[in-house]
Amino acid sequence: MHKILIINTGGTFNKTYDPLNGTLLIDKTSKALEDIASKWLCEFEIINIIGKDSLDITNHDRLELLATISHSTHQHIIIIHGTDTMHVTAEYLADGELEKSIVLTGAMVPYSIDPVEASANLCSAYGYLNALKEEGIYIAMNGMIGEYTEIKKDRIKGRFTL
Amino acid sequence: MHKILIINTGGTFNKTYDPLNGTLLIDKTSKALEDIASKWLCEFEIINIIGKDSLDITNHDRLELLATISHSTHQHIIIIHGTDTMHVTAEYLADGELEKSIVLTGAMVPYSIDPVEASANLCSAYGYLNALKEEGIYIAMNGMIGEYTEIKKDRIKGRFTL
Amino acid sequence: MHKILIINTGGTFNKTYDPLNGTLLIDKTSKALEDIASKWLCEFEIINIIGKDSLDITNHDRLELLATISHSTHQHIIIIHGTDTMHVTAEYLADGELEKSIVLTGAMVPYSIDPVEASANLCSAYGYLNALKEEGIYIAMNGMIGEYTEIKKDRIKGRFTL
Amino acid sequence: MHKILIINTGGTFNKTYDPLNGTLLIDKTSKALEDIASKWLCEFEIINIIGKDSLDITNHDRLELLATISHSTHQHIIIIHGTDTMHVTAEYLADGELEKSIVLTGAMVPYSIDPVEASANLCSAYGYLNALKEEGIYIAMNGMIGEYTEIKKDRIKGRFTL
Repeated sequence: MHKILIINTGGTFNKTYDPLNGTLLIDKTSKALEDIASKWLCEFEIINIIGKDSLDITNHDRLELLATISHSTHQHIIIIHGTDTMHVTAEYLADGELEKSIVLTGAMVPYSIDPVEASANLCSAYGYLNALKEEGIYIAMNGMIGEYTEIKKDRIKGRFTL
Repeated sequence: MHKILIINTGGTFNKTYDPLNGTLLIDKTSKALEDIASKWLCEFEIINIIGKDSLDITNHDRLELLATISHSTHQHIIIIHGTDTMHVTAEYLADGELEKSIVLTGAMVPYSIDPVEASANLCSAYGYLNALKEEGIYIAMNGMIGEYTEIKKDRIKGRFTL
Repeated sequence: MHKILIINTGGTFNKTYDPLNGTLLIDKTSKALEDIASKWLCEFEIINIIGKDSLDITNHDRLELLATISHSTHQHIIIIHGTDTMHVTAEYLADGELEKSIVLTGAMVPYSIDPVEASANLCSAYGYLNALKEEGIYIAMNGMIGEYTEIKKDRIKGRFTL
Repeated sequence: MHKILIINTGGTFNKTYDPLNGTLLIDKTSKALEDIASKWLCEFEIINIIGKDSLDITNHDRLELLATISHSTHQHIIIIHGTDTMHVTAEYLADGELEKSIVLTGAMVPYSIDPVEASANLCSAYGYLNALKEEGIYIAMNGMIGEYTEIKKDRIKGRFTL
């Protein structure tokens, strides 16, 4: 099996409800990801960087992500990312010509609210990456898996489609 | 994306609690599978056959499964199967020389009790199958994914390992 | 058993996540309440009014609540209310001299995120009201149950205490 | 508020799934009860005795329960009990002329499978007991709360009714 680096950049996947002020906050400790991965994935490492909603991610953040990936010895990488700018980051990474296999995933609903969607997306990405032979930048969301140029968020339907 | 046939043969994945007699029964209507697949998979069809605990599956049942697969026009197949004899069925299918890509999966705990494990296993299988180029018989369980000869149920730990 | 009127005024209890804009909104259709009550309560009616976060509830809203209660033929009433101004509404109702038995309850975390807390609070209120002989205004939250003057929200701890 | 003794005798409420042998077993450590009570009840103590399915409870067990209650300094007691013989135990305790307020409760579905039903039943019992002025033996199940002689398990419907 492939050794996989999971880079957690934040996004809806990681949001938890804070009863003290009644809002959803990004949990930067990555508890949701640890929860799924420790039980249902193998041969992985987790790194937490950025920790932002994807609407707040800047090109400075994307440079940090690119540097993290290129300095890593891993060839197979999953990125947990907010859904709104997932395709922007995918394109940024594609321009980086990384010669690695990278799958971006995330969730439309926080793991803390619907653990099944977040787990389904992450595990689809994980399964895909384990069989993947080609380098490239891919997206796995809501059962859609393929090159990042082919899959888009449909803001009306609230899910990713071709 | 691949068009996938999901053949549901029963097993723990499908068990639900019956409060009238206090036992866990296999739901032959495949509600658990429909629940995950309708929301988190694409391009699939579901067939329900056999509907048994894997300890009760006979070679007669396996012949029915083999016939279902070979008569299908699908090249990519996921089989939901009980965990105890998953490797027996995998070997039986391997002897059938099917020239298709087949991933067996299931759950150690019913979807009705832990929806995350069942979803994680199914979606790992689904992701894997979508990137897979080779024919063969594979198992995807608890983060372990690979040829059926490589992955075994560890009855002491209660999960699948290399 | 007492015939109980449940008046749903909104609050955290009823919030659901909207994946289209990533926020928690009050579900004015009262699905959470119907979900618990239809399965686990008896002899009740539900009325939905106001439909607000408790910080947004005005004395005009409280007058609507008071009128709803006093026009009702029910002697036993549960009010689902946001937690931040639950005591303000309780005091307002106490001034109304209603000669009814009224228990206010709600949730620190939405039912859609933690179904157990919301159910525990509602069912504690329901059980209390069924044994109650005295008229008055009561609060039932997080295991604390008693006259509204005795129970306060502790904003630091995020729960209700004496 | 009343100081409440919760006596956990086992039953469906406490069953958890054992993936090693695929069966539901009574968890004698009372994790389900601790889970609800530590978060959503106040002023309680928990004692675990008997630890059986209610069909296996003998009069010897009931004598142990009666002795535990009569030796306790608590006036207000909740008993977690299997549903099939809840009324037999209630009648046995009624014959004991205890001069205490006792509510029996439990669950049709294990807390580990449906945390809402078990929480709803326990919290209804808890709320009821906190307002109760009279001594006696009561049952609180599925929204039905009252003297034990009035409430029965309906084996066809799978819930308690008048």
